[in-house]
Amino acid sequence: MAQNLQNPPRRKFWGWGYEGHGPGPDEVQALSRMVLERFGIPAEEARRPPRIEDLDLRPSRVIPPATLESICRRDSESRAAHTYGKSFRDLARAVESEFPHPPDFVAEPRSEEEVQRVLEWCDETRTVAIPYGGGSSVVGGVEAPASDDRPFVSIDLTRLDQVLEVDARSRSARIQGGVMGPSLESQLRPHGLTLRHFPQSFEFSTLGGWIATRSGGHYCTLHTHIDDFVQGLRMITPSGVAESRRLPGSGAGPSPDRLWIGSEGILGIITEAWMRLQDRPTLRASAAVAFESFKNATACVRALSQSGLHPANCRLLDAGEALTSGTGSGENHLLVVGFESADHDPAASMRRALEICRDHGGTVPEDAGATRHEKGRKGDDAVGTWSQFFVRAPYLREALYLATGLITETFETASTWDQFETLHHNVTQAVTDALQRICGGGTVTCRFTHVYPDGPAPYYTVFAPGRAGSQLEQWTEIKQAASEAIAQSGGTITHHHAVGRDHRPWYDRQRPDLFAQALRAAKREVDPGGILNPGVLIDPDIAPDSQPSRETPQNVVGTNHPNR
Amino acid sequence: MAQNLQNPPRRKFWGWGYEGHGPGPDEVQALSRMVLERFGIPAEEARRPPRIEDLDLRPSRVIPPATLESICRRDSESRAAHTYGKSFRDLARAVESEFPHPPDFVAEPRSEEEVQRVLEWCDETRTVAIPYGGGSSVVGGVEAPASDDRPFVSIDLTRLDQVLEVDARSRSARIQGGVMGPSLESQLRPHGLTLRHFPQSFEFSTLGGWIATRSGGHYCTLHTHIDDFVQGLRMITPSGVAESRRLPGSGAGPSPDRLWIGSEGILGIITEAWMRLQDRPTLRASAAVAFESFKNATACVRALSQSGLHPANCRLLDAGEALTSGTGSGENHLLVVGFESADHDPAASMRRALEICRDHGGTVPEDAGATRHEKGRKGDDAVGTWSQFFVRAPYLREALYLATGLITETFETASTWDQFETLHHNVTQAVTDALQRICGGGTVTCRFTHVYPDGPAPYYTVFAPGRAGSQLEQWTEIKQAASEAIAQSGGTITHHHAVGRDHRPWYDRQRPDLFAQALRAAKREVDPGGILNPGVLIDPDIAPDSQPSRETPQNVVGTNHPNR
Repeated sequence: MAQNLQNPPRRKFWGWGYEGHGPGPDEVQALSRMVLERFGIPAEEARRPPRIEDLDLRPSRVIPPATLESICRRDSESRAAHTYGKSFRDLARAVESEFPHPPDFVAEPRSEEEVQRVLEWCDETRTVAIPYGGGSSVVGGVEAPASDDRPFVSIDLTRLDQVLEVDARSRSARIQGGVMGPSLESQLRPHGLTLRHFPQSFEFSTLGGWIATRSGGHYCTLHTHIDDFVQGLRMITPSGVAESRRLPGSGAGPSPDRLWIGSEGILGIITEAWMRLQDRPTLRASAAVAFESFKNATACVRALSQSGLHPANCRLLDAGEALTSGTGSGENHLLVVGFESADHDPAASMRRALEICRDHGGTVPEDAGATRHEKGRKGDDAVGTWSQFFVRAPYLREALYLATGLITETFETASTWDQFETLHHNVTQAVTDALQRICGGGTVTCRFTHVYPDGPAPYYTVFAPGRAGSQLEQWTEIKQAASEAIAQSGGTITHHHAVGRDHRPWYDRQRPDLFAQALRAAKREVDPGGILNPGVLIDPDIAPDSQPSRETPQNVVGTNHPNR
Repeated sequence: MAQNLQNPPRRKFWGWGYEGHGPGPDEVQALSRMVLERFGIPAEEARRPPRIEDLDLRPSRVIPPATLESICRRDSESRAAHTYGKSFRDLARAVESEFPHPPDFVAEPRSEEEVQRVLEWCDETRTVAIPYGGGSSVVGGVEAPASDDRPFVSIDLTRLDQVLEVDARSRSARIQGGVMGPSLESQLRPHGLTLRHFPQSFEFSTLGGWIATRSGGHYCTLHTHIDDFVQGLRMITPSGVAESRRLPGSGAGPSPDRLWIGSEGILGIITEAWMRLQDRPTLRASAAVAFESFKNATACVRALSQSGLHPANCRLLDAGEALTSGTGSGENHLLVVGFESADHDPAASMRRALEICRDHGGTVPEDAGATRHEKGRKGDDAVGTWSQFFVRAPYLREALYLATGLITETFETASTWDQFETLHHNVTQAVTDALQRICGGGTVTCRFTHVYPDGPAPYYTVFAPGRAGSQLEQWTEIKQAASEAIAQSGGTITHHHAVGRDHRPWYDRQRPDLFAQALRAAKREVDPGGILNPGVLIDPDIAPDSQPSRETPQNVVGTNHPNR
């Protein structure tokens, strides 16, 4: 992840990561052969990435005022790059050069004061403001709100990228919201500390984004969401600054942080957070245990989740997932159990965990689970922790789509143990039926990303042969079937991907109506103009005078610079 | 805790627990001698408990309507018993027979539907509704709101006392909000499950009360507050029913539960909760480690809190606390470390914990920390878990006050480790100064009730010689000094005692203003009449027409039954 400062890598405006990164031609060929074998799709239907010069973006309906001009961009590439998140839906639209609703401009504030000024201007001019971190949303969280024709600005926060203060004694740090994963970890490394929050989007997502979307991270048990690592928050709203006191724990009323965590940009912009950190682990033990029966494997995970051993890793991959990720032959289900510590040898915990695995019919390889001492070892970061496959998956998906038109997407949920078996059956059945009906075939596989004493968080991966030009509609229909099955089986519409705009129909059924009313009321207080990320989570009340005439914003803007 | 159904014990209307329970005459004498030795207070100033027949309560300003009459009480004892919580302030006022603001009547709904009907009636008649669980508030959470002269009803929820459903597979249960600790545990015992939430008020506090006040419980690390054990909630509000889906984890927007947890009765009445439970532990290890230096002991607790060992018990008692509780000679500070499990021998964790203790200068008794197998052992409940002193403390305080006029009270906070030393110094200094100035002496001692990787939750106990008839004013002034020192040192005004009305001045400074605005707005949605526990947490907006003329409620009431 080292960057060449002379030639900083350039992020793709249409897909995942940096230009030129991802699989090389040989790997793409090998992957395409695999797709041909599995799904009978030849690699002939190859499509090319879109080119910025071929896009014909709608002209900006507002331009930044002179006072903000120096931190705003209106060039096509910036606007296109901030039009979508990174879901399959986003990829499919981008590859078709469909960018009908780009932001009118992109603001890149370099300080909290500039965030405030951008928000003030948006509020005055009734311009919609959409906070943008790493842009890795897979739920339509950063795109133009449907049926809201107000002009909109994408507020890119990645220049707020500093660790501002480290309190080693309390193992915590004050960190700006726009810092991306790798930079955050490299700033903490000299202090011997780590946040250890490694979502799949780690490389291209930000602390503020993780907090705003209740991101799921490294730990499979105990501290699964980013929520638990938040010690205090600072948020800029159109009505002013909200800051909570940094505390290890408090019982003073409902937690303000917990209202802001998961607010997905509708209440304000998280500019700073005091975060709880970890010592860098030096002792690790892990084992991969094979199960013939998925039911036994599930029962084993349940026993582990209720054992109080709290493994850092406890990922169950069904046979299909194990095959795809190259960690299994496709015959057995695979449970990866792992412990890590900066303080003590986890050998006793690992011994007991493997005993539980054997008790449930798991095949434990001889000598599995020995403790490794890894003091000072290089690569103790996302890459070292996650399998290569995990981190590279978004690159691979994209390459596969270009080469073969393959539909690949994931969805996830969580449910209590008593409901899991039915939910899993219903979801698998509904998606398999949909795949057959819509695509004539395809696969749906499952892994557990996180587990709790009261239930698992299953995560599903879909591969389906796409029909050229129809993949978006095909996926939409499959996703609909999956979401309905989840909702009807008592699962949550999202465990850690967030709600955004895409999950609204099911979220609206899931969350208590009175809570939605309370949230709308809370939003009116901090965002009376309803400018912040409208359509995400709730439909805000927009005052009748908030749909401005086209002239309004023009009245306040300065000189028109078409490009910067 | 077995109850004789023929002669059910009768709860005191003026103090802690049942009539006739608490220390006998010999123990009171011994305690009084101790007070004489320590503070020079002779036991001559004995006062008597108040008698119900001596109270001259204000006549009820409203009477229940005929439709609710069968579940309402207006007798003096019921009204007096629901006038106060259980703080020293409450005790002092009760003993002086000061009950100027009793509830106009007490409602005792037996079903959720009856809760709804009571709330509807209150809303229609603009009568203030104060939810009342076990009545163990020590922060003015259940008393008449100051400067609000609307009539008020105390809604006693203890008839909603059933475990309704057990899901053993997910180790969870659906439980009514009004169940008290002992009954809850005895209903769970046949299932081999336990909530293991043992606040000091365990015997006389309810599940709904714990959730509404973010009660702190049994576990010193990890799951310190009741919050983490809430899987889903059901709440009755004047605007209807709010119910969250039971889920092991979710990332769908801000957590509705986390807005309701800690809402202290201002948003609604928690009638049911799905709670996460534990297997009953069968393997236990514990050790008491002595430290000469408080600073070393504190550093040791910090190391333990950051070790990832997650001891169930990790209570540091300073020398004074150790002396008072009879667990030490008063020369050394005492750290009690304990592990418990239903799954595995915690020996390895205990060994490492004791190593950390030795590294920090702790004296570990030989053979300390051996694992005890306790399968099927009787008394595996609050009493078996906590020291006798802990559970009996409220009885002892009361007896001491009656015998000697001794002021005894506690207060608590939490702060990050980097601020703890200064906070502890400031608080101790401020209270010691105040004691000297106001009482001519007294003691303030400290223990840690809960610890986090980023800071401890210190808990302070004050003993002070009272001046007959002035104890209330004396304590108020001491508490003021303590609260100011906490606020100025960056601590929270409460870690687990809640805010109520007593902590408002400091809570108002601590919580972000925009959060208060959001909370007020949320309250307007669920409680538009502002009838629910006004003055707690926030001052609600009360519509101008909400201060009813004295006639209004009379218009809707039925036959006037002076007593029931």
